[in-house]
Amino acid sequence: MEFRHVVRRRRMVRNYTSDPVPDEVVDRLLAHAIRGPSAGFSQGWAFLVLDADEDVRRFWAATTPDEPTYTSWLEGMSRAPVVIVPLSNKSAYLERYAEPDKGWTDRDESRWPAPYWDIDTGMAALLMLLTAVDEGLGACFFGIPPDRIGRFREEFGVPREFTPIGAITVGHPAPDRGSPSLKRGRRGLDEVVHRGSW
Amino acid sequence: MEFRHVVRRRRMVRNYTSDPVPDEVVDRLLAHAIRGPSAGFSQGWAFLVLDADEDVRRFWAATTPDEPTYTSWLEGMSRAPVVIVPLSNKSAYLERYAEPDKGWTDRDESRWPAPYWDIDTGMAALLMLLTAVDEGLGACFFGIPPDRIGRFREEFGVPREFTPIGAITVGHPAPDRGSPSLKRGRRGLDEVVHRGSW
Repeated sequence: MEFRHVVRRRRMVRNYTSDPVPDEVVDRLLAHAIRGPSAGFSQGWAFLVLDADEDVRRFWAATTPDEPTYTSWLEGMSRAPVVIVPLSNKSAYLERYAEPDKGWTDRDESRWPAPYWDIDTGMAALLMLLTAVDEGLGACFFGIPPDRIGRFREEFGVPREFTPIGAITVGHPAPDRGSPSLKRGRRGLDEVVHRGSW
Repeated sequence: MEFRHVVRRRRMVRNYTSDPVPDEVVDRLLAHAIRGPSAGFSQGWAFLVLDADEDVRRFWAATTPDEPTYTSWLEGMSRAPVVIVPLSNKSAYLERYAEPDKGWTDRDESRWPAPYWDIDTGMAALLMLLTAVDEGLGACFFGIPPDRIGRFREEFGVPREFTPIGAITVGHPAPDRGSPSLKRGRRGLDEVVHRGSW
């Protein structure tokens, strides 16, 4: 698909049919994810791919509160046959920049103007969201509640250095209502762009 | 251009010709940036666009150390006729999620599993990097040294709530050497993908 059409068609899909997603499509999502940029080419990221029914069920069981208030969201989202969890690894960045060509041997985090471990992993996530559109599928990026991250780590054996920045559902779109947040409207260029100075 | 070609052709361009970038192209970069996703549709971002020679000079003067060790990088980068600075606004997210439909009225940051203000602004930045490729141009995303951010803010009148997550040069690519970081090689899918469990 033309790049500009992919950008314009992308939206968060929160309801899915139970149709499967072919393995090759999952592979193409991941192949694009690792084409994302990363500071110092640190590539401090990992992707947990859950595409077996049982693993997807384990994901939702681990990350859902005991009494969720968002049951209709959950129902639509948990039908997605694939969940991919992008994880960031800050220590990989601190180590990379302690190497001789960068020389930040103190591993001091105040040297970093922004958390590039999370930003780069987010860029990889966006490449997967866009690729899903290019493949005629839908996807949604969403946060894992902080008080469930421990349980998620335990369930999937995630090492301490890796932190999930969220999770992505992938599947065939079914009709959904659209997020209530969309009522806020998109902020126009006149609001967010400053030219030459603030 | 086909989406997959844009993804595969994207790379950081660190040397530019002095050819100008048409205004319409800058507008298309920005139009795509604001199509990026954002948690709760918060859109807590801003874009400082510097496309007049004098403004670009002010940017480099404000953000470069007094005795830079990376002069050849600077020479190539500072020829780019356009610099766009994406800025994140954490307070816009805390305010958005204090609204009735989200209800996090305490504005407690520990509710956030990841810094979505920076991640979303990073996604908007990636959309500009990709759009530059789609337009036949080159771009580079790079950090502003933390000890120069104060001076940058002052120079361009940036309000306290906004933090630059980096800056993007845009222009016509000239031959460059490629980052020494590339010698590290891309980490393959076998290294970064975990299926079903770690």
